[in-house]
Amino acid sequence: MADYREMWSELGLDLALHDKLCAALPPLFEEAFLHQKDRPSGMDYFNMVIAEVHGLRIKELVDHKRNGGFVVGSFCVYVPEEIVLALGGLMVGLCAGSQFWVPEGEKVLPRNLCPLIKAAIGAKLSKTCPYFQSVDLVVAENTCDGKKKAWEEMGRLVPTHVMDLPNRKSKEGMDLWRSQVRELIKRLEDLSGRKLTYEGLMEGIRKVEAKREALRGLYETRKADPVPISGIDSLVVSQIAFYDDPERFTSMTNQLVQECRDRVSSGFGVFPKGTKRILLTGSPIVVPNWKVHHILETSGASVVVEENCTGTRYFKGSVDTSPKDLEGLIDALADRYMNGINCACFSPNQGRLDDVVELAREYKVHGVVDVTLSFCSTYQVEEGALKRRLKEEGIPLLCLETDYAPGDEGQLRTRVEAFLESL
Amino acid sequence: MADYREMWSELGLDLALHDKLCAALPPLFEEAFLHQKDRPSGMDYFNMVIAEVHGLRIKELVDHKRNGGFVVGSFCVYVPEEIVLALGGLMVGLCAGSQFWVPEGEKVLPRNLCPLIKAAIGAKLSKTCPYFQSVDLVVAENTCDGKKKAWEEMGRLVPTHVMDLPNRKSKEGMDLWRSQVRELIKRLEDLSGRKLTYEGLMEGIRKVEAKREALRGLYETRKADPVPISGIDSLVVSQIAFYDDPERFTSMTNQLVQECRDRVSSGFGVFPKGTKRILLTGSPIVVPNWKVHHILETSGASVVVEENCTGTRYFKGSVDTSPKDLEGLIDALADRYMNGINCACFSPNQGRLDDVVELAREYKVHGVVDVTLSFCSTYQVEEGALKRRLKEEGIPLLCLETDYAPGDEGQLRTRVEAFLESL
Ligand code: SF4
Ligand code: SF4
Ligand code: SF4
Ligand code: SF4
Repeated sequence: MADYREMWSELGLDLALHDKLCAALPPLFEEAFLHQKDRPSGMDYFNMVIAEVHGLRIKELVDHKRNGGFVVGSFCVYVPEEIVLALGGLMVGLCAGSQFWVPEGEKVLPRNLCPLIKAAIGAKLSKTCPYFQSVDLVVAENTCDGKKKAWEEMGRLVPTHVMDLPNRKSKEGMDLWRSQVRELIKRLEDLSGRKLTYEGLMEGIRKVEAKREALRGLYETRKADPVPISGIDSLVVSQIAFYDDPERFTSMTNQLVQECRDRVSSGFGVFPKGTKRILLTGSPIVVPNWKVHHILETSGASVVVEENCTGTRYFKGSVDTSPKDLEGLIDALADRYMNGINCACFSPNQGRLDDVVELAREYKVHGVVDVTLSFCSTYQVEEGALKRRLKEEGIPLLCLETDYAPGDEGQLRTRVEAFLESL
Repeated sequence: MADYREMWSELGLDLALHDKLCAALPPLFEEAFLHQKDRPSGMDYFNMVIAEVHGLRIKELVDHKRNGGFVVGSFCVYVPEEIVLALGGLMVGLCAGSQFWVPEGEKVLPRNLCPLIKAAIGAKLSKTCPYFQSVDLVVAENTCDGKKKAWEEMGRLVPTHVMDLPNRKSKEGMDLWRSQVRELIKRLEDLSGRKLTYEGLMEGIRKVEAKREALRGLYETRKADPVPISGIDSLVVSQIAFYDDPERFTSMTNQLVQECRDRVSSGFGVFPKGTKRILLTGSPIVVPNWKVHHILETSGASVVVEENCTGTRYFKGSVDTSPKDLEGLIDALADRYMNGINCACFSPNQGRLDDVVELAREYKVHGVVDVTLSFCSTYQVEEGALKRRLKEEGIPLLCLETDYAPGDEGQLRTRVEAFLESL
């Protein structure tokens, strides 16, 4: 690995603490990924991206800024990357999946809060996340209570723009969201000193749509039995989509998709044909939170699809590019987000239940595992409706709650094994 | 007490279980209230209301329904009682403060949820709340995550209309809220078969404003040192405002206010002059949750003002009745709610911090106690901002988290005593 210490130091990282964080990742990755058999060779690129997670990409962000560009950080798939790209910026996901940051976050946030939020604030407070240190602006959103209120703390640490999401996908909710997309444009125009144009936005849409299309292609191959790629490998590809260079990511993912298609044609897979197929749904699963996938796939199951924000919700639905004027295109962009993403922060959120059932059929799964992060109330309360719906449909369901702390693997594994046996 | 068993049975109560609940209340009330010295004689009425909590008022609701009226239940001070009254209905608060209902609620809701929500759902599920059994419609609201998602469960148990609140008090948020007030009117017009008129709404506003004015009068007397009434007595008056007959409540409260004014004039109080004066803020405190007031006032302090929804937020701000047409009056009504109430479910919620500081000065308090219910994330995260603000202002703050379960009184008392000593 190149020596990035000077760059890290310039970004204001706490180098000593950052060393500790960096030391923790490789064994974690090794344990979760490298034991796997027959991984597609196209995964080499993604292995490298993880190995270089605080290096290569950070250097690109820094260079981009040196060349007059800007960097935006986000925490939700509702933040439209198309606009950021259109105005000459780069967007990186700042959702944090490491226990390393949780105690730091708990210094300013209540303990009874989702680990993703505590880790995000902790990452910034501890000055050990070079992505956080690189962003010019955080684009946050009012989704769940924890995030909504944590932005008030975040705003003290880093420039933060909050998009106000509605609680309901009504006519008024839609109007609010469209106005919020326009407010974001204004804010990013101010930040960049550029003006959003029709052509620019079209180009941004094209880049993001290509990325989404590549992921759709990857997921499509996972419908095969045997599956050409493990769930955890597919997961890490999705996770990397949040911060890698969009065009390189698309191209590397497309290569991987080709390889997976070839595998499907030749009937080659990473797990034996007939392996129990699992749909995983719930709260987002962000780097390096590989816990539940790892447990499932080392307990004899195969995760073939994720109905979550690091899964199908990231790429569901395309922007309607038929409008011929900028305002029309902005509305179409806003609509893709509101229509494509069924987050439990909305009430009602019937669409997610429909999505789960539809995906369960398409991917021919044997069972569904709902994974919620501790204190993620929206998804946890929605579990009631999910249970009823899946019972009606005759689809077995296992509900797991976990956080980032190690120690619950044994208990999760016991429950997973009992569930798999029952299928 | 009259025999209400036939009425309860007609309301579909689980009589055996309800007996247990009823047996638990009197000793709780006795312990929290009856040991107090020099209570105003005007409290006799409110003692009676508590003693008759499942009797007299329920009979009135039942009679009201027999005479063609309707009853609405609510969970938030955002639901405009004025409209309910204007259309010939009665409104009762269904917020539940008893541990009795929590385990029942946990059957369908996650354990990691605020006790108020679990108790509310548990009260309905267990069929032991005659208020719940009496309502024709629950008017719920999208405020915190827990409530927003719990309404999806509630809607399966009882007809439920959800008002969609914005997350931010912006222009668009205000538009959404005004539209939601109009949707409620439509729903209640359908329910009642009546049409909202200007005169009717004015009459509803007059009744509710009279109630608010009476409470303002009561609070005003609490500015005196010595205080003419204890915090816990004042709290129970506020709690009763949520379900008593509005006009009787107003008249009885005004009598109490007169008595308190007389006490102030003569320098008579329930605690010695110079007793440490406390402002209490945070999550709502609903019947029969008297835990923290009781601990504070039996530890040598006096709670002189509550900045919460069972306190000043209930009566802050009046409706501007200058508009001469119905639509204008509806907007003015909507605005009173949005401007008067500073709930942590909004972000930002600077108004609450200003309110706390202003009230702390007006009531000449020695310290502030922020009481949050467990898992009430909005108020708990907002504690960060509250801490900073009160530090700036030089006002001591104690943060307490509690739920409805007994067992934490000792620990709370220790912290309260240490705080009071430090003042
Ligand atoms: S789960 Fe909801 S709040 Fe979280 S990233 Fe997805 S859409 Fe955003
Ligand atoms: S996982 Fe749940 S609680 Fe955590 S940030 Fe996402 S929606 Fe909020
Ligand atoms: S605290 Fe907020 S949600 Fe609760 S009653 Fe008050 S205004 Fe409503
Ligand atoms: S106390 Fe807090 S968590 Fe509970 S219902 Fe009210 S706002 Fe929601």
